[in-house]
Amino acid sequence: MKSQQVRLAKRPKGEPTAENFEIAEAELPAVGPGQMLVRIIWLSLDPYMRGRMDDARSYAKSVEIGEVMGAGTVGQVMESNHPGYAEGDFVLGMFGWQSHVVSDGNGVRKLDPALAPLSTWVGVMGMPGLTAYVGLLDIGEPKEGETVVVSAASGAVGSVVGQLAKIKGARAVGVAGPDEKVRYVVDELGFDACVSHRSATLRDDLKAACPNGIDVYFENVGGPTLDAALSLMNPFGRIPVCGMISMYNTGPVGGDADRLPALMRRILTDRLKIQGFIVSDRGNRHKAFMKEVGGYLREGRIKYRESVTVGLENAPKTFIGLLRGENFGKQLIQVSEDPTRG
Amino acid sequence: MKSQQVRLAKRPKGEPTAENFEIAEAELPAVGPGQMLVRIIWLSLDPYMRGRMDDARSYAKSVEIGEVMGAGTVGQVMESNHPGYAEGDFVLGMFGWQSHVVSDGNGVRKLDPALAPLSTWVGVMGMPGLTAYVGLLDIGEPKEGETVVVSAASGAVGSVVGQLAKIKGARAVGVAGPDEKVRYVVDELGFDACVSHRSATLRDDLKAACPNGIDVYFENVGGPTLDAALSLMNPFGRIPVCGMISMYNTGPVGGDADRLPALMRRILTDRLKIQGFIVSDRGNRHKAFMKEVGGYLREGRIKYRESVTVGLENAPKTFIGLLRGENFGKQLIQVSEDPTRG
Repeated sequence: MKSQQVRLAKRPKGEPTAENFEIAEAELPAVGPGQMLVRIIWLSLDPYMRGRMDDARSYAKSVEIGEVMGAGTVGQVMESNHPGYAEGDFVLGMFGWQSHVVSDGNGVRKLDPALAPLSTWVGVMGMPGLTAYVGLLDIGEPKEGETVVVSAASGAVGSVVGQLAKIKGARAVGVAGPDEKVRYVVDELGFDACVSHRSATLRDDLKAACPNGIDVYFENVGGPTLDAALSLMNPFGRIPVCGMISMYNTGPVGGDADRLPALMRRILTDRLKIQGFIVSDRGNRHKAFMKEVGGYLREGRIKYRESVTVGLENAPKTFIGLLRGENFGKQLIQVSEDPTRG
Repeated sequence: MKSQQVRLAKRPKGEPTAENFEIAEAELPAVGPGQMLVRIIWLSLDPYMRGRMDDARSYAKSVEIGEVMGAGTVGQVMESNHPGYAEGDFVLGMFGWQSHVVSDGNGVRKLDPALAPLSTWVGVMGMPGLTAYVGLLDIGEPKEGETVVVSAASGAVGSVVGQLAKIKGARAVGVAGPDEKVRYVVDELGFDACVSHRSATLRDDLKAACPNGIDVYFENVGGPTLDAALSLMNPFGRIPVCGMISMYNTGPVGGDADRLPALMRRILTDRLKIQGFIVSDRGNRHKAFMKEVGGYLREGRIKYRESVTVGLENAPKTFIGLLRGENFGKQLIQVSEDPTRG
């Protein structure tokens, strides 16, 4: 049995290109005792993967040169010598950018396809949803009537942040790029407002959308959106730092004025809290998340959108596009057929 | 009855000079019904007062031109028509840089001189002590065996931060300026180590003093000490931001490399929490503070040092010296005789 794989060919400098990836086949070992063969169906692409392509110190181990790119995946068991899994079972695992894998079940969870569509286990019901949940509720702590701003608002994390903020009684304001996403965030997801980071008057637009200032800024992107949001934070504002997509591809920057002293002064004067978090530290919140967000999803109070690219071989270029904001909603690679979809 | 006063003459640009202050006399009104005349004994000088000399938006109202400089004070009632106070009572109030005041008792508290020396009510038992308490315990949350670093370690706030950290089972490391203060912090206050921010090898010194990295950095000064501490923060580190003495006298800085993107990246990667706080928001902690820190003080587990300048007319130059770090311990102006001191 062969597995098609996407491996890290060389480390990117700045924005990754096709040359940083290598598509290859590997011969899988035979399925030993206590093991199973899994066919990958859904592969999740997420901005954090860019950080793992560097060898800089980070919160997670770097991908090594020649190693398969890591990712959360949903698959189906094709053959099993594992007592806990039978042929045909659906599973969630960190199997990476590949088509098949032999697993001993370590870190794997069985999925009930009746509970939620298979692909959502790497989206709104998975890591991105939990990221939104713990960042907004545990760090952002929005109160009724407050204003929550979230960048990358149409994305897998941002869309849940804003909808949860609304459910908690806050005003939800998104920041997105193209008009189509800006409209979607308001018309489909029900945010109170959304502005475009492409606007030359971003700060004024955001100010107009937040007449009472910003109490929670959920940080996904960095760059000019961060600057605009910072300038509008209310006293006692909270900034959960989830990611900084716009910074992932840039190295240290020189030559600009140093904004750190002004930031520190703002933090003091307005008693701001800026806190980084990573979803993998927050496993203790998984059960509460599943119950609460699962409920909203079934009730139709939380909506989501998927951006599906078919074929593992398209993962590199889709990932490069994701870092540029070319996806619309949760980015997935469909590696093989999903038998639960009509 | 006349009150000698120090008023704001003009707003400073950068470091204040004598010209920013004006010493004058004001005729006090007669003591009306429900009022009392108070003679100021102890006047507290604190770095935050520099911020109030600016007209920039800040957490507290600016001092107006021609207005008496604000300050916490301890005084004695000389004459009273107030039912709650009798002649001879000692009181704590925000009476400012002056010798006498007529008060209606609003915001005033009676002090028991048997509980603690009068001067400590504007020091270790007052605002600076409470600042250390809430910043360290509520935001820093040090755990046993962790490392706490505090800048301005021999000062009114820093000295309490380090001693409280020790009591809570943490390793306490100070940053101070001159050798004399560095020695005092270790030999007298019992910190585990102290380094000098004047050292050309500050970062290496701090690294050597913190072999397990830094879990809590209590920020009092900004500048190179902040940079050094940031570079040594452990994952999940906490930075309570209490003040930035080194930044108070500087306006916006240009030309240096922008350190904000790197800071945001560190916050994310290491899940740091940076949170500003101001003691006046934390009145709900006053009772717990009084009980706990009062107990440590009586048991001799928390020590303090005072830097006393006699004479209200010396307040401006003493304050200018405080901003330069020339004080050693809690800076006080003795405005008139303290009858409880031998």
